[in-house]
Amino acid sequence: MRKEGLLIVLSGPSGCGKDTIISQVLNHLGDDGFLSVSMTTRPRRGTEIDGVDYYFVTPEQFRENVENDLMLEYAQYGANFYGTPVGPVKHLLAQGKIVILNIEVQGGKNVRRLMPDAIEIFVAPPSLQELERRLINRGTESRDAIDRRLLIAQAELRCAADYDYIVINDVLEDAVEDILAIIRASGLKQEHAMHRISEVMNHAES
Amino acid sequence: MRKEGLLIVLSGPSGCGKDTIISQVLNHLGDDGFLSVSMTTRPRRGTEIDGVDYYFVTPEQFRENVENDLMLEYAQYGANFYGTPVGPVKHLLAQGKIVILNIEVQGGKNVRRLMPDAIEIFVAPPSLQELERRLINRGTESRDAIDRRLLIAQAELRCAADYDYIVINDVLEDAVEDILAIIRASGLKQEHAMHRISEVMNHAES
Repeated sequence: MRKEGLLIVLSGPSGCGKDTIISQVLNHLGDDGFLSVSMTTRPRRGTEIDGVDYYFVTPEQFRENVENDLMLEYAQYGANFYGTPVGPVKHLLAQGKIVILNIEVQGGKNVRRLMPDAIEIFVAPPSLQELERRLINRGTESRDAIDRRLLIAQAELRCAADYDYIVINDVLEDAVEDILAIIRASGLKQEHAMHRISEVMNHAES
Repeated sequence: MRKEGLLIVLSGPSGCGKDTIISQVLNHLGDDGFLSVSMTTRPRRGTEIDGVDYYFVTPEQFRENVENDLMLEYAQYGANFYGTPVGPVKHLLAQGKIVILNIEVQGGKNVRRLMPDAIEIFVAPPSLQELERRLINRGTESRDAIDRRLLIAQAELRCAADYDYIVINDVLEDAVEDILAIIRASGLKQEHAMHRISEVMNHAES
């Protein structure tokens, strides 16, 4: 149906439910949808598979990718680097697939630079109070860590203006439907769909 | 949910099913959706109601609207003029409504000029052969008239590149879902949804 694929970038404050949204969106997309695999310098753990969970590389390999402008975005956490290599994404797009990227808010700018056709979606919580409740309910972080996340979230919300679309994750099902509508509409954009007009004009009687 | 409404323009060759698509889309939208009412200089017939079926005006009134740049688009058929007055459209948009405009392909350019935020959708048949079949099945026109419509359709298909979205009406239900996805996604565009981020940041605990 589509000649080239679609690159869908999802960003938003930690705790706003991106992971759950993405797994439900991927369920709907079936064979058409792929979650981009990140590259990391951290050691492989237990059952993790190279190329599925992460691309596991050495710090030197990671640095080479960055220097050759082959990373859509990357960030450092502690001693380790994490990022999105552009190669596998372009490979999937060339096959007409829908590739979903789950990245940090700051990473969006570099994706826009390297992949100007990317559809960038900012996922926001319905309120900062609700975000706080969700972070507390996770039960995985100290009060200090949660307060830090809320401060970061406030700064990140100001970046929403740089995104193409804004989805508020209040009711999960609605947010999933929002993302699916954005994906469906994006495939119908004139620049993606003009080849179909040529088909209409040249279609031979079958 | 939305601060300003959305103006959705549908154009495409005669016989590609716009009227049916629009009536189904309006069913889905319920109280949020409105079909724009045209203005005409032709006399009112039988049960037609002014302001519902058409705005019935004199040729002088129509001309004044055109001269004052108050028509989104207009065209002459035989001795009569038909067009879309901008006033009622703006009134509905200010109420946050979704207004659907069903217009001739050539009218799109003027709508873009007066309402640059309009979402313009080109509806195309799956093939010229299928369009011919549909026009024949209507049974309302002579072979000559159908041939003329097919020639015009070919010229109109070339204008698809000027539209924001392209929807192929092969299976009606899919085309309706396409339009609904475009409408849903359009409401999530950053420029329409930024006020929601302000709400997220300023939302008081309730």
